[in-house]
Amino acid sequence: MLRIGLDVMGGDFAPDSVLKGALMAHAEWSHSFRLVLFGQSSIIEPFLTANSDFASHCDVVYTEQVIDMAASPVRALVEKPESSIVVGLEALNEGKIDGFASAGNTGAMLAGSVLKLGSSREDIRPCLLGCLPRPEGSDGILLDVGAIADTKPETLRDLALLGHVYAQTVMGIENPKIGLLSIGEEPEKGNAVTVAGHKLLAEMPNIHFVGNVEGRDIFTDKADVVVTGGFTGNVVVKLSEKFFEIAQDLHCAELPFFKRLNYETYGGSPILGVNKPVVVGHGISSPLAIQNMIYLTYDIARTGLCERIFAALKDE
Amino acid sequence: MLRIGLDVMGGDFAPDSVLKGALMAHAEWSHSFRLVLFGQSSIIEPFLTANSDFASHCDVVYTEQVIDMAASPVRALVEKPESSIVVGLEALNEGKIDGFASAGNTGAMLAGSVLKLGSSREDIRPCLLGCLPRPEGSDGILLDVGAIADTKPETLRDLALLGHVYAQTVMGIENPKIGLLSIGEEPEKGNAVTVAGHKLLAEMPNIHFVGNVEGRDIFTDKADVVVTGGFTGNVVVKLSEKFFEIAQDLHCAELPFFKRLNYETYGGSPILGVNKPVVVGHGISSPLAIQNMIYLTYDIARTGLCERIFAALKDE
Repeated sequence: MLRIGLDVMGGDFAPDSVLKGALMAHAEWSHSFRLVLFGQSSIIEPFLTANSDFASHCDVVYTEQVIDMAASPVRALVEKPESSIVVGLEALNEGKIDGFASAGNTGAMLAGSVLKLGSSREDIRPCLLGCLPRPEGSDGILLDVGAIADTKPETLRDLALLGHVYAQTVMGIENPKIGLLSIGEEPEKGNAVTVAGHKLLAEMPNIHFVGNVEGRDIFTDKADVVVTGGFTGNVVVKLSEKFFEIAQDLHCAELPFFKRLNYETYGGSPILGVNKPVVVGHGISSPLAIQNMIYLTYDIARTGLCERIFAALKDE
Repeated sequence: MLRIGLDVMGGDFAPDSVLKGALMAHAEWSHSFRLVLFGQSSIIEPFLTANSDFASHCDVVYTEQVIDMAASPVRALVEKPESSIVVGLEALNEGKIDGFASAGNTGAMLAGSVLKLGSSREDIRPCLLGCLPRPEGSDGILLDVGAIADTKPETLRDLALLGHVYAQTVMGIENPKIGLLSIGEEPEKGNAVTVAGHKLLAEMPNIHFVGNVEGRDIFTDKADVVVTGGFTGNVVVKLSEKFFEIAQDLHCAELPFFKRLNYETYGGSPILGVNKPVVVGHGISSPLAIQNMIYLTYDIARTGLCERIFAALKDE
């Protein structure tokens, strides 16, 4: 049975929100995987005492240091070797767990993943993947959504490959359509990096590149995987979240599409480009978001995504 | 009385949509400004004959060449000196009209504006401004939305100044809040261009810089003017249009906010950074969009935006 690690200390509403989310996920995970909690004993112990059935289905690693949400990532990793994030990633690297999820400091999770788990290929940078619902019911993905702010053409090629393998492996799309986000359909439209990236993507033998897509195409099935730099990708994801909020305020949010725009539905952003399954949750994660973050991490571990990415990068 | 030029030949649904829009705008413009139509005689003549009251309130300049929507901009400008866009921009430069609007080839309008009207300052690049509604009722603006795909830090500074003057002059906001779109609130968050741009904006003495704003802030009143490069700005605008469409399909579109997200409400994107008032409409402009594009052009001409921009750039 796979073991999924959960950072009890990560997130604006941790530990309460995280523990509630873990409890909500209980029914599912107790049959499919084992949960391993990482966090302070003073918090976890009383919770397990109060929830004995839950306690019997999970393991605990006590970690007494906590990396703050706003801490400088690299410094925090060095200064807090006994934190839930550092200990969790080390356990993942040592094979004691099969995936690790945290709604904590995103920068620490990104830097820590590279440091503790290693990159899928020496020169590849880790990226964050975002999920995009479409009104007609299926899901698309967007990457990078914030890890790589300055993008080179070669970065876009790496993102295309990572997204391709993710769509195949985790989402079960046999031949995913890969689109490059730009500001016109023609290959020569866009900024310099995107125009150069277009040429690289067009030359990739193993992906189904459908060319440029525009802002209006993101929520359609024109592409299953939308590739863009982390700056624009992050703006798109945060803008989409805002639209969900607006729809909520206007009482449209119960409509299925807007419901699916809710970040809680996806639970988090997988970090791709590192050797083991890691998922970062939204800082404001609710119990529902945590529940789905746990499921997402399990899905990535279960389907062997990291091994598939490693193989795809080697074959390239 | 000011004279506003209208390209009858521009847009996917031209000339019908343009002429219908002009007719819809009639009640307003016949009291405030005079409309000058630019287009082919075989199209305009019968229309004026059939609408004699309209005809008595507008002037006509017959232009027999047409620049296609998909034509290469610079080549089209050279090869079609008798087109509505070229003749219209020349008339504007010569003071025969006070503003010019077209839903035609955006690239030709941008290049033509620089060529025929000159830049507001020698080294400034023309940009496109987009309007952003907010759920609570007021409007914000975003620039650039697609003219400047590759942005330097200095470009962001120019955009901040142009947006500042636009918000003051055309929107009547006394001390507009200027925000820089980035992927974190802290000055050091973002890509290299944005981080460097942040420093430049923070040093500008005459604007109210509120720092970085994120994707989720675009539709709030955190900033009245959101500054970003044309790549990300274009993605934001097209994504927002798509959300309007989705809301429409889901029958939420009658809600005031979503109604205002409709491009038709704003009519078009002003080109800033050139010496005279020019507005480019959406290619798919409906009669309602054309009507509002005419009003917007009139507002820009009436308020003396270009003179104010010229003065602000000189004072800097």
